[in-house]
Amino acid sequence: MAASQKPASQKKVIISCALTGSIHTPTMSDALPVTPDEIVEQGVGAAEAGAAILHLHARDPLTGQPTPDPAVFMQFLPRLKQSTDAVLNITTGGSLNMTVQERLAAPLQASPEMCSLNMGSMNFGIFPLADRYKNWKHEWEEPYLRGTDDFIFRNTFRDIAYILEHLGEGCGTRFEFECYDVGHLYTLAHFLDRKLVKPPLFVQTIFGILGGIGAEERNLVFMRETADRLFGGDYAWSVLAAGRHQIPFTTMAAVMGGNVRVGLEDSLYLAKGRLARNSAEQVAKIRRILEELSLEVASPAEARAMLALKGADQVAF
Amino acid sequence: MAASQKPASQKKVIISCALTGSIHTPTMSDALPVTPDEIVEQGVGAAEAGAAILHLHARDPLTGQPTPDPAVFMQFLPRLKQSTDAVLNITTGGSLNMTVQERLAAPLQASPEMCSLNMGSMNFGIFPLADRYKNWKHEWEEPYLRGTDDFIFRNTFRDIAYILEHLGEGCGTRFEFECYDVGHLYTLAHFLDRKLVKPPLFVQTIFGILGGIGAEERNLVFMRETADRLFGGDYAWSVLAAGRHQIPFTTMAAVMGGNVRVGLEDSLYLAKGRLARNSAEQVAKIRRILEELSLEVASPAEARAMLALKGADQVAF
Amino acid sequence: MAASQKPASQKKVIISCALTGSIHTPTMSDALPVTPDEIVEQGVGAAEAGAAILHLHARDPLTGQPTPDPAVFMQFLPRLKQSTDAVLNITTGGSLNMTVQERLAAPLQASPEMCSLNMGSMNFGIFPLADRYKNWKHEWEEPYLRGTDDFIFRNTFRDIAYILEHLGEGCGTRFEFECYDVGHLYTLAHFLDRKLVKPPLFVQTIFGILGGIGAEERNLVFMRETADRLFGGDYAWSVLAAGRHQIPFTTMAAVMGGNVRVGLEDSLYLAKGRLARNSAEQVAKIRRILEELSLEVASPAEARAMLALKGADQVAF
Amino acid sequence: MAASQKPASQKKVIISCALTGSIHTPTMSDALPVTPDEIVEQGVGAAEAGAAILHLHARDPLTGQPTPDPAVFMQFLPRLKQSTDAVLNITTGGSLNMTVQERLAAPLQASPEMCSLNMGSMNFGIFPLADRYKNWKHEWEEPYLRGTDDFIFRNTFRDIAYILEHLGEGCGTRFEFECYDVGHLYTLAHFLDRKLVKPPLFVQTIFGILGGIGAEERNLVFMRETADRLFGGDYAWSVLAAGRHQIPFTTMAAVMGGNVRVGLEDSLYLAKGRLARNSAEQVAKIRRILEELSLEVASPAEARAMLALKGADQVAF
Ligand SMILES: [Zn+2]
Ligand SMILES: [Zn+2]
Ligand SMILES: [Zn+2]
Ligand SMILES: [Zn+2]
Repeated sequence: MAASQKPASQKKVIISCALTGSIHTPTMSDALPVTPDEIVEQGVGAAEAGAAILHLHARDPLTGQPTPDPAVFMQFLPRLKQSTDAVLNITTGGSLNMTVQERLAAPLQASPEMCSLNMGSMNFGIFPLADRYKNWKHEWEEPYLRGTDDFIFRNTFRDIAYILEHLGEGCGTRFEFECYDVGHLYTLAHFLDRKLVKPPLFVQTIFGILGGIGAEERNLVFMRETADRLFGGDYAWSVLAAGRHQIPFTTMAAVMGGNVRVGLEDSLYLAKGRLARNSAEQVAKIRRILEELSLEVASPAEARAMLALKGADQVAF
Repeated sequence: MAASQKPASQKKVIISCALTGSIHTPTMSDALPVTPDEIVEQGVGAAEAGAAILHLHARDPLTGQPTPDPAVFMQFLPRLKQSTDAVLNITTGGSLNMTVQERLAAPLQASPEMCSLNMGSMNFGIFPLADRYKNWKHEWEEPYLRGTDDFIFRNTFRDIAYILEHLGEGCGTRFEFECYDVGHLYTLAHFLDRKLVKPPLFVQTIFGILGGIGAEERNLVFMRETADRLFGGDYAWSVLAAGRHQIPFTTMAAVMGGNVRVGLEDSLYLAKGRLARNSAEQVAKIRRILEELSLEVASPAEARAMLALKGADQVAF
Repeated sequence: MAASQKPASQKKVIISCALTGSIHTPTMSDALPVTPDEIVEQGVGAAEAGAAILHLHARDPLTGQPTPDPAVFMQFLPRLKQSTDAVLNITTGGSLNMTVQERLAAPLQASPEMCSLNMGSMNFGIFPLADRYKNWKHEWEEPYLRGTDDFIFRNTFRDIAYILEHLGEGCGTRFEFECYDVGHLYTLAHFLDRKLVKPPLFVQTIFGILGGIGAEERNLVFMRETADRLFGGDYAWSVLAAGRHQIPFTTMAAVMGGNVRVGLEDSLYLAKGRLARNSAEQVAKIRRILEELSLEVASPAEARAMLALKGADQVAF
Repeated sequence: MAASQKPASQKKVIISCALTGSIHTPTMSDALPVTPDEIVEQGVGAAEAGAAILHLHARDPLTGQPTPDPAVFMQFLPRLKQSTDAVLNITTGGSLNMTVQERLAAPLQASPEMCSLNMGSMNFGIFPLADRYKNWKHEWEEPYLRGTDDFIFRNTFRDIAYILEHLGEGCGTRFEFECYDVGHLYTLAHFLDRKLVKPPLFVQTIFGILGGIGAEERNLVFMRETADRLFGGDYAWSVLAAGRHQIPFTTMAAVMGGNVRVGLEDSLYLAKGRLARNSAEQVAKIRRILEELSLEVASPAEARAMLALKGADQVAF
C-alpha cells in the first residue's frame, strides 16, 4: 500500500536457455548436446517450451570439446534461425585455451542480435567437478576440468572495449552482460560512464562458480540491489545459477521481478537426483513456476522489444 | 562448493494455513469461512491438501464478525481434532476491540498445542481496504475497517510475559511468534534472554501490513538474516505476506529454507485477479511450487517433532 | 571511479542536540538539565559547540519529571531564542502518562519551526535501566521506568494525521520524523502518498530502544537503504542511537552522508565509563570526528535552508 | 539490551600501515617513499604513531618503479626490524609485469611473520589515474598506469596453493588475505575447506579498485557479513579503501568492530585536498578517531597474539 510497492502488473519474464556451454563434458550427461544436429534439436525444443533467447556455444562434433570454429557455428545457426523465432545469442566467452581473437571469430562472422560478454577477468574453478567421475568418455575431459585450477578467464578492460567496439558498434550486436561478482557490475558501470554501452542493459548475474560470488540467496538480492543503484531503472535483470541452484535461484529472480536463464550449460539436472533429458524440460519447469506466480512469459518478439535488438533479419547467417 | 553452501538435503517444509483471521470481512469474498461448519470444512480441506498446522480464529456465525467467545471456538476445535491430524493453532491476537483478557479466554480454556503470539504493540492499518468495496454485507464491516486508523494492536512486554507464563508455562502451549517488524525480533530475543521462551522457536515473519514492515523482497531477506543472528540455528523460520504477495513471498521463503503460511486470513486470492474458493487451493498451489523446487512437505507428525509440541492428546478439547 | 560513486563534495552535516528528553531521570546523572535555567544554559552551550538544532522537552523544575506544561516550556523557549540562532525543535512525543492532547499543548501554543513526530505506536521498554540504580533522587523515577513494561507509546495513524494537520498545516511547523523501526518508514511513505507530508523530509532513524530496531550497524545501513528507496533523493537523513551507541552510530551516519543527533536525551556518556558534563561535550566530540572526516558542520541558517523551515521570526514565543 | 548486542568491551584495533605499494607513482606525491632510507624512516614513523603492522613493497631507488628484487628488500627489512617492534608484512602481490615466481622471491628469502596474499585473479584498473597528471617525473609512470587497462592481476587457485604451501607451510608465514570482491571471500572459504589455511584468518577487505568491489558503505557491510557467515567468529577483519575513501571506510570498520589499514599505498591524502606528508600522519589521524570512539589500539605484541604470528625472532633477516 505504501509508495514504494511495485505495481501489481509486472513486465513479462524473458526465459533464456543456454544449450550446451563449455563447463559440462559429455561424460556428465548423455543429454548434453554436442553435434549441430543435437544443438538444433534441443534449441528448437527449448524455444517451443518457452525460451525467447537461445545462448549458444559450439563443440567438436566428434569429441564434444568446446570449439571456437566459425564453421561449426555455421552448421547450426542458419538451421536454428529457420526453425525458430528465438533470439540467437552467441558466446564471446568460449572456453579454456581460447584466445580472445578465437573467441570472437564466430560472433564477428555471424553478426548476431546478441552475444554474451563477460565483465572481468577471474579464476574460473570447475576442477572440483572432476572428482565426481571415474570413467571418462573422452581423454580431454579430465585434464580440461582439472586444469581450471590454473586457468584465468581473461576479459581485460581493453578486451571488453575491443568487443564493444567491433561487435557492438561494428555489427549492431547487443549484449548479455555476464556478471560473476559485484566488481563486474562496477566494471559495467565504468563502461556506461564511458558511453561504450548503452541502455537498456541486459545484466546476467551468475551465482555459484568458484572464483565468483557464491550461490546464496542473499548474494542474489545484493547483486540486484547493486545493479539497481548503478543502472537505475533502465536495465533488464536476469539470473542464472550453477547446478542444483538453477531452479531455486531463477524462481527467486522471478519473484523479484527478474528474468531467468536455464539450460544444460548451467545445470544438468531437472530435479534433485534426476538428470534432465534436455534443456526444454528445464524451460518447461521454470515456466510452470512462473505461471503459478501469475507471471507471463515473454515471446521472442517481446524480448526483442525489451532489449532493443536489431532483429533476426539483420544477422549474417 | 564453498564451505558456506548449505547442504543439498534441506529439512522438510511446514505449511501452515490460516483459515479466516480477523482482517477480511464477509463482503470481500464468499469463500471466507464464518460458521463453525465452514471452518471445519475448510480446515479439513487444507489439511488434506498438505497443511500441517491450522491457525484458527472464530467469527460470529451470524454476522461474520471476529469473536473471542470460547463457546464458538469449542464448536469447531473438537471436530477439527476428530477430522484431521493437523496441529491446531489458536490466535491470541484476536481482533480490534478485544482486551487481552478476552483474547486469552479461548486459548486458556482449550490449552492447545500452539498459539500465535505477537511480539509488540503496533499500528495495524487495514483501513485502505475499505475503499475497495461499496456494498457491504454487514453493518459492522466498514466502520470496523475504517476504525483501524486509530487502532493499536496491543501487546506490551507485560502482556507478552503474562501469556508466556499462563499459556506457555501453564498449559504447555508453544507459540507461533508473529513478528511484523525488525523490533519484534529484538523483543523475542529479549524474552529469550530472560529465559521466558525456549528454543526451538517458531518465528513467523509477516510482510505487508500497514504499520509493520512492507512487502518487499529485501525486507524478507533482512528479517531472515536478523533472525539468524539473534536466534542462531535453533529456530524454524516461516513467512506470510498480505494479499497478492502471499504466493511470491512464501515461494521465496521456501527457496531460502523457510516454512510457509497461506490461507484466507492472509490473502483472498489464488492468482492475479482470481479469488480462491477456499484455503485448500492456496495450500495446493504452494505445495506444487515446493515440489517443483524439489522440496518435501512436512506431515503434522514431522511438524510436531520440529517444533517440540506437546501432542494432540494433551489439549483440553 | 564508477558511475555510482557519490560526489566528493558532500553537503554539510546538521548536528541536532537533544538536551534532556524523557528517558533519563535525575538519579542517572547530575548533568541532566531539569530547570529552565539549566536547559537554557546547556542549550546555549550546545549551540555554541556546533548544534544547529536543539530538540526540547520540559521537566518539572522541582522533581525533574517530564511535563507537558506549556508554561514551563515558555520559561526557556524565549530565552533560548534570544541567546542562540539554533532551530528550536519541540517534542510532540512527550513521555509516559501523557495523552496526545497534552503532548500537543506546548507545540500548538509555541508554533515552533520544527517538532519531532513519531511514526507509529510501539512498546517503549526502558525498564531494564531501572536495575542499574539503587538510590533514587525522586520517588517517581523507579516506578516511571519500571512501568514502561506495560507502556505503549501511542501514535496512531489518526493521531499523526491530526498533528500534521493542526501543527503542520496550521502552524507551518515542519517535522523531525522519528522512525524507530522499518515499519515507521513505511508509515511515513503512506503519509507522503496521501500528500499530508511534503519534501524535503527530515528523517530521524533511531536505534537501540527496546521495542524498536536494535543498535546494530547493519540495521543503520538497512534503514538508510529503505529510506533511500521510499523517499528518493528528497530527504535529509539523520541518526541517533541510545546510550553507548551514540557516538559510533552518529559517526557511521556521517560517513554515509547523514546528519547526526547527540545530547543527554539520547546518552548520558561522553566516553566509555565517563559521564558527560553537558550536551555540549557530545556536540564537540562529534564535531571533532566530522572534521577528521573532512566534513563541514551546517550552521543554523544552512540547516533552515536544507530543511525548508519557516524561520525563527515566525514562531509564537 | 537484546541478546544480540555485542559486548561493550571490544578487542583492541590493529592498525596496519602500507608504506608505498605499487599503485602510486613518484609524480603523484613527493611524500611517497622510494629509497630504502625513506621506507625505513616512514616505517619507523608509522610504528611510532601506532601501527602494529607495516606492509611493505620495494621500489627501484633511482626510478621509484616497483621491484621484486630481494636485494632491495634486504636493504630495509633488517633496519626496520632493528628500529621497531612492528610486524613486518611483505607483499606477494608485487606489481604489473612481475611473474608469480618473481613476486615470491623476496618473501621466500625473508621468511617474514606475515605476507599479503590475494584471493583471486582480477582486472586491476588504475589507468584512470593517469589522466590526472601531465608532467611525469619518470618515463615508466604513464605507460605503467595506462597499461593496466590490459592487465590481469594473476592469482590462480594453483598459485595460491603454491604460496600457501611454500611460504605458509614452508616458512611459518601467516597471511593478510586480500579480498577485493565477494568471490575472493568464497575462494578463501574454499582453501579453508581444503585445510590449506588455518584460523585465525586475517581478512583484509579492499574497496574502490576498478575491477573489484566499489567503495560504497553498503559494500563494506556486505563483505563483513559474508565473512562472518563464511568464517564464523574465528577471523580478524580489516578494511582498506582507495583514495579519499581511506579514512571514512576505516572509521566505519572500526565502528563495526574491525581493524584498519592506512598508508600511502592506499591513499596519498590526509584530508580533502591535502596530501599527507607521510604515512604516520594517516596513522595518527585514524588513531585520534579510534580514541574518540573509545577504542584502544593494539600493540605489535597484541597483534601478534591476535593473529598467531611466529614472532619477530623467527624471520630470516
Ligand atoms: Zn555460455
Ligand atoms: Zn491470526
Ligand atoms: Zn525527544
Ligand atoms: Zn601491497
